[in-house]
Amino acid sequence: MTMTLETPAVLEAVLYATDLDAAEHFYGEGLGLSKITRHANRHVFFRCDGAVLLIFNPEETRRLDQNPEFIHGTDGQGHVCFAATEDQLVAWKERFEAFGIDLEAEFVWPNGARSLYVRDPAGNSVEFAEPGLWFSDDR
Amino acid sequence: MTMTLETPAVLEAVLYATDLDAAEHFYGEGLGLSKITRHANRHVFFRCDGAVLLIFNPEETRRLDQNPEFIHGTDGQGHVCFAATEDQLVAWKERFEAFGIDLEAEFVWPNGARSLYVRDPAGNSVEFAEPGLWFSDDR
Repeated sequence: MTMTLETPAVLEAVLYATDLDAAEHFYGEGLGLSKITRHANRHVFFRCDGAVLLIFNPEETRRLDQNPEFIHGTDGQGHVCFAATEDQLVAWKERFEAFGIDLEAEFVWPNGARSLYVRDPAGNSVEFAEPGLWFSDDR
Repeated sequence: MTMTLETPAVLEAVLYATDLDAAEHFYGEGLGLSKITRHANRHVFFRCDGAVLLIFNPEETRRLDQNPEFIHGTDGQGHVCFAATEDQLVAWKERFEAFGIDLEAEFVWPNGARSLYVRDPAGNSVEFAEPGLWFSDDR
């Protein structure tokens, strides 16, 4: 080893959706994320704080006529969670209501952290949770 | 709106694997991530820097006998990307070699950022990329 590997940060979280227009509308207009790029019917990427959310159409990313390392794709309902403080959770609920996004559930974890759950148009589970769910220093 | 919503950070990135033992070995022993918890054959969670990587067995998380908001699960090859500096990429390659993880590809993006690609035992695409791929200030 030339150096000690530190615990890596997550740079890209990924979800899949066959209807990219609906995904772009939900994450861009609905959640208000800033779009980085959209490529035809293959993908739409959004900027998060310190990381990015990549939404791929699995029908395109599973194609074999591309570099092998770029081949991936899933069917079914994925999951992602965004960090939100207690105050931000209140604001997210207001945003969901303003945008007509059904709040699927509110949940309080055993350690007291709160989560909100909604579904994106592809059925992916999108959670907003207090960072204290995982990090005791609330960072 | 009671407050302006800021761009949220990613708190949880998610992959799926039906063989959790293999996933636990790969991410824990192979990549050296610190395990947070393992619950039977349902999930194994790992700590990253400022976020967590959740590996779920979709055969369990799709079960209907749980809170509806906890139902998700995908089949196929997902994707996640970890941040790594240029020096760390070299160290990751050494780690892959030491652990017998095949390097699927090295890729240089148009903006000069470098990526490494490996596959986890479930076939998920695991990338390590310089943060400059997405963030011009390299944070």
